[in-house]
Amino acid sequence: MNNKITDFACTIALDAMGGDYAPRNEVIAAAQTFSENPSIKILLIGKESAILDVLKKENLSFPKENIVNAEEVIGMDEIPTVAIRTKKNSSIVVGATMVKNKQADAFVSAANTGAVMTASTLILGRIKGVERPTIGADFPTAYGRVCSIYDVGASVDSKPAHLFGYAVLGSIYAKEVNKTPNPKIGLLSVGEEDNKGNELVFNTRKLLQESTLNYIGNVEGKDILMAKVDIVICDGFVGNVIIKLGESFLTFLKQVLKNYAAKGFTNKLKALIVKNVLKVALKDVDYQTHGGVPLLGVNGITIIGHGSSSPLAIKNMIYKAKEMHDLNLIQKFEEELSKYGKR
Amino acid sequence: MNNKITDFACTIALDAMGGDYAPRNEVIAAAQTFSENPSIKILLIGKESAILDVLKKENLSFPKENIVNAEEVIGMDEIPTVAIRTKKNSSIVVGATMVKNKQADAFVSAANTGAVMTASTLILGRIKGVERPTIGADFPTAYGRVCSIYDVGASVDSKPAHLFGYAVLGSIYAKEVNKTPNPKIGLLSVGEEDNKGNELVFNTRKLLQESTLNYIGNVEGKDILMAKVDIVICDGFVGNVIIKLGESFLTFLKQVLKNYAAKGFTNKLKALIVKNVLKVALKDVDYQTHGGVPLLGVNGITIIGHGSSSPLAIKNMIYKAKEMHDLNLIQKFEEELSKYGKR
Repeated sequence: MNNKITDFACTIALDAMGGDYAPRNEVIAAAQTFSENPSIKILLIGKESAILDVLKKENLSFPKENIVNAEEVIGMDEIPTVAIRTKKNSSIVVGATMVKNKQADAFVSAANTGAVMTASTLILGRIKGVERPTIGADFPTAYGRVCSIYDVGASVDSKPAHLFGYAVLGSIYAKEVNKTPNPKIGLLSVGEEDNKGNELVFNTRKLLQESTLNYIGNVEGKDILMAKVDIVICDGFVGNVIIKLGESFLTFLKQVLKNYAAKGFTNKLKALIVKNVLKVALKDVDYQTHGGVPLLGVNGITIIGHGSSSPLAIKNMIYKAKEMHDLNLIQKFEEELSKYGKR
Repeated sequence: MNNKITDFACTIALDAMGGDYAPRNEVIAAAQTFSENPSIKILLIGKESAILDVLKKENLSFPKENIVNAEEVIGMDEIPTVAIRTKKNSSIVVGATMVKNKQADAFVSAANTGAVMTASTLILGRIKGVERPTIGADFPTAYGRVCSIYDVGASVDSKPAHLFGYAVLGSIYAKEVNKTPNPKIGLLSVGEEDNKGNELVFNTRKLLQESTLNYIGNVEGKDILMAKVDIVICDGFVGNVIIKLGESFLTFLKQVLKNYAAKGFTNKLKALIVKNVLKVALKDVDYQTHGGVPLLGVNGITIIGHGSSSPLAIKNMIYKAKEMHDLNLIQKFEEELSKYGKR
């Protein structure tokens, strides 16, 4: 822990105990990044013995001094606020604290989303002007580019000021990371017209209209996959339902094809062709290649991954964290938010 | 208008001016039903001259005395409450009034959903115990059976008592119409666990737990297409986003295939196979074969169709209305709701 951050282009605190296959997939991702990209320093946080076991078993090389022992693990079903308070030596608390103390530039974890979010929010704090941090998700669209949804579950029962904050953060993220020049923002509602919506929509609209954001009006559920806008703003309850429904489409398609294939040999052959075509045509929809999602609005970089993250997904999370660091995103968030007073 | 309802098994008031292709598709559906099923009496409500034009042009036969002239039309973008009040001689107001006056057993319309809903609610009134009427939508699932979502947009900013009412109504509908013996009900939330949700979910859960309904707990967005439950209960804002996202999935797939096909001749051939297979495998997902959805909770049968309803879809709506009438559904709703006091 004597290396200063400046010795490397970027130092990433990686939660080795996060995902469903931890520490295996995390250790593999760390070792691969170590050999592929020496300018990224990975600090692997977790049970040292378990990490060393994987390195040995998988015959991987990783600098032992970059393993940060953290004996406690926060499980997937633990209550975040309680776990964060009681397990000070958990990989999640240790990882977020290292970012807070400038020992790392970013924290990457595929652990219990709520726990990573809570730890990051409590330990790193919020950027001035942010009332609630948010997690976005990039939806694939029919036209190649993504449509980012904020919020997808960081918080529910949101207020207009929260949704407005998501729009500001999401807009900067789209501009800087997705390289979308003037991201179009839509407010999710039950119809395009201004008189369609609920209380939250009506009150959020006013804030968006008064801002300098590229707000284009209401959008509907059907507009997401059709890429009508770059960013869709909604309450985290709705966003969470949306991404889970979206993710299940592929599972649904697979099962429907299985049913079809079961009806005879010709069907089986045809289903095989369909599978192969969809695999290519829908490759962008694959969760694995996308990696995790950033928690925006906290005072530091945190990337949260799916519990089932593969080594490739975890590597993508590491690279995304590095990109956010290189872009100096936190400072850009601060600058933009300072333009708007308290909402 | 001298025929009493009892002369026929069922009398349906059909809004001829409803859909995007009105009165064409409505008149075709009415004439086909007239020739196929003489036990159903259709009253075609709309501009008589326009209806007669279609009959002539399409060379269809339909009894002239069953055309109910209504000169006004409520457009798709009119504000429902205003339109209902000012256009007393519109097909929507006339149709709902005929059900109210027992001149018809059911009202079927593919017009402005809000206007049909408002007219039905104001003219027919609510069943005792219902605070808000609801519109459901049947989602296809990977396992053949449907998953019905309530509410999909009849109202937003719902209260726990509203959602509880949707569960009671939806449960009877599933039992009687879909022939599901003991329909499983799930409450849509952001996680399966009881501590996951928003205020609405937490407070609705109590009502469901105290009832005799087959409530199995929280469900997530991913559970809909996987048929985890027969009925999913949610606020109409969320439900509306869900069905619109769901409907757009096929459009998305088509576009993705088109992109794939554009990449060469072999791709084009393969994409053709995929299209044909998906057409067969996903035929249950086709909106057209499903027809419209009932407005549950009003004191009479109202079926609302998509603006783009085909003649087949409209016929299916007519048959659905007849089925609800034959099953004596309104009385069954009343009986079940009377078991629960004011919530």
